[in-house]
Amino acid sequence: MLKKPRLFTAGPTPLHPEAIRAGAGDVPYHRSPAFAGRFERVQAGLRAAFRTESPLAVLATSGTGAMEASVASLFAAGDRVVVVAAGKFGERWGEIAAAYGLDTVLLKLAPGQPLEPEAVAERIEAAAPVRGLLLTASETSTGTAFDVRALTEAARRAAPEIVVAVDAITAVGAMPIETDAWGLDAVAGGSQKAFMVPPGLAFVACSPRGWELVDNRSSTPRYYLDLRRYAASAARSQTPFTPAIGLLLALEAALDAIDESGGIAALEDNAARLAAACRAAAPALGLELLAPAAPSPAVTAIRAPVPGSAPEIVAAMRDRFGAQLSGGQGDLKPDIFRIGHIGYVDDLDLLGLLAGLESVLIDRGHGLQRGAGVAAAAASLAGEAPPAALPTGPE
Amino acid sequence: MLKKPRLFTAGPTPLHPEAIRAGAGDVPYHRSPAFAGRFERVQAGLRAAFRTESPLAVLATSGTGAMEASVASLFAAGDRVVVVAAGKFGERWGEIAAAYGLDTVLLKLAPGQPLEPEAVAERIEAAAPVRGLLLTASETSTGTAFDVRALTEAARRAAPEIVVAVDAITAVGAMPIETDAWGLDAVAGGSQKAFMVPPGLAFVACSPRGWELVDNRSSTPRYYLDLRRYAASAARSQTPFTPAIGLLLALEAALDAIDESGGIAALEDNAARLAAACRAAAPALGLELLAPAAPSPAVTAIRAPVPGSAPEIVAAMRDRFGAQLSGGQGDLKPDIFRIGHIGYVDDLDLLGLLAGLESVLIDRGHGLQRGAGVAAAAASLAGEAPPAALPTGPE
Repeated sequence: MLKKPRLFTAGPTPLHPEAIRAGAGDVPYHRSPAFAGRFERVQAGLRAAFRTESPLAVLATSGTGAMEASVASLFAAGDRVVVVAAGKFGERWGEIAAAYGLDTVLLKLAPGQPLEPEAVAERIEAAAPVRGLLLTASETSTGTAFDVRALTEAARRAAPEIVVAVDAITAVGAMPIETDAWGLDAVAGGSQKAFMVPPGLAFVACSPRGWELVDNRSSTPRYYLDLRRYAASAARSQTPFTPAIGLLLALEAALDAIDESGGIAALEDNAARLAAACRAAAPALGLELLAPAAPSPAVTAIRAPVPGSAPEIVAAMRDRFGAQLSGGQGDLKPDIFRIGHIGYVDDLDLLGLLAGLESVLIDRGHGLQRGAGVAAAAASLAGEAPPAALPTGPE
Repeated sequence: MLKKPRLFTAGPTPLHPEAIRAGAGDVPYHRSPAFAGRFERVQAGLRAAFRTESPLAVLATSGTGAMEASVASLFAAGDRVVVVAAGKFGERWGEIAAAYGLDTVLLKLAPGQPLEPEAVAERIEAAAPVRGLLLTASETSTGTAFDVRALTEAARRAAPEIVVAVDAITAVGAMPIETDAWGLDAVAGGSQKAFMVPPGLAFVACSPRGWELVDNRSSTPRYYLDLRRYAASAARSQTPFTPAIGLLLALEAALDAIDESGGIAALEDNAARLAAACRAAAPALGLELLAPAAPSPAVTAIRAPVPGSAPEIVAAMRDRFGAQLSGGQGDLKPDIFRIGHIGYVDDLDLLGLLAGLESVLIDRGHGLQRGAGVAAAAASLAGEAPPAALPTGPE
């Protein structure tokens, strides 16, 4: 029985075929006018994706490198920052901040818990003076989304000059992130998410004020992750260090493909409608969402029907169908699995996956009506209400 | 909304990723010991697929070239041949035979009609003396399969020396074809079917007696399609003319992949179980099969719910989901569509496709229970009886 390897993880994600082709060829020399022209095309595509007018820093790192570059370039030891810690990646902001000697105030949330903007404002006021706010747009570990715009606005009501850095690594391409319009001082992204490119590239977009701050902070020791170097090189259509050339050519092709199929907004819409369909399927499969009140359009976290059984479901999907889901992370590992639906994922991918998940659950003895989960997702994709005629309980 | 282009046609079929990679590289020189070694690996894989001990002819043509090479090399003008004409590809045997001046006796079947071995024997006896029988193992135009072994045995009861040539282009890799054990004098195959390689290569396998016949017929004018040249070159691990080198390297990789995943029998099983699932879904979708009595494991032909509407269903599947089905051919064009499930197609591909087909049918006003088709297919893939609990009529 043939089983195609399929990624339904929250990253890496399926590659765009044009990105595969572009990245598979020989690499040109990067200090050449031709490469500078291609880097400019990449920059134009990234500006559209992050909704900014300024060049971005393009780093040969994972997404964490972009987060660290933001902290190292925007803050100095002793600065007090409020960190929204809603899961593993929010906690990572806290770890990076601590590594740089920042005075971190954790705003800890339970997995899947939504966050009211007012709660952020209150925490900032209570901890005054606060110099920065570190946000996660889509907390990948729990499939929870946060309203970056509203949180930023609330923070600035409490502290008008507060510096806001956003981990938007799984968010860009799944939900709108307006770097300039929302005044986000730094926004971190990565190639292996909605960009449909292999891991190895990270991005930092900054609002105009963000770039000013980057220029004016110099006390933190930094070199490779110094955003000033990337800004200076980008002004000459270059990177300060050897770029990951093959990945950049793949990204150029993927950004072209995004542009040709309706732009970043169409990519966001695609993820959002797949996410809605995935959420519609869950109750029909007798499953609960981890973050029903604030679900991410990038990744859906689902509670296993029996606590502790999530790893077995992930393994069964891989063994029986070749489909790789994400398991839970940390304390959530036994109890949740996650379905990624960013980037190069389409309706038939999701419908097939849900049919497979249904089979795995039935195999495991969960009384389900075959077809119910797929039916609910298909109705959602077709813009219909969930099919009421299909019983969803045990047969 | 993202729509991945997906092939569910009866050929070309989805390419194996290893074949894509192998075929995308630079081409080596073909008159070299290294290439001869690789050609031998290809020959070994093809011998396993066609179940023969002899080298095959490997032609740079479409499948029709292999059919014509068989006729040109096995028969002479004036030979009487019985041609099973069950659709477009059986008729093609007749056209090729006529082009070479053979005396063709058509055994014409209605679309989807099965063929009793005794009917072949009777036709051969009635038309005696008959020198040859031209069979189609899987008639792609109607999704009908024929029992090549039983038909050959019946023919040889009527005419012991009869020369049997088989179009197995969509059949190899979907149903067992035993060139040597069944005494098939020529078996035609093509790269773009279950071999998961692009079009451009065709194969002729011959039983030991078939190769003897090839050697001893010389009155027919032929050059590029003369199987003697291919046999002589194959003995030196070569082709007589410039081979399609890139396609051969792709085929080498695909044959390796087949070998590593259980061999040709596993590939045949995969097609057969997908075909069974596809057939199980049809009644749940309110659809009828064109060939219920003799369905092909390679391609399933389905009647459109309203006569004349098949092209609209094919177009809707492409436009809405990016999924390319095969339409009908000739007179069947308005009324049937066909789903191919040979080669690199897996469970989640088929389940997703059926969910999409269900949505298209519902959009077109056919009263269906959402999820019913997928449920029937998933139950079939899981080895269960069709789910009786799901009503299949209008809601």
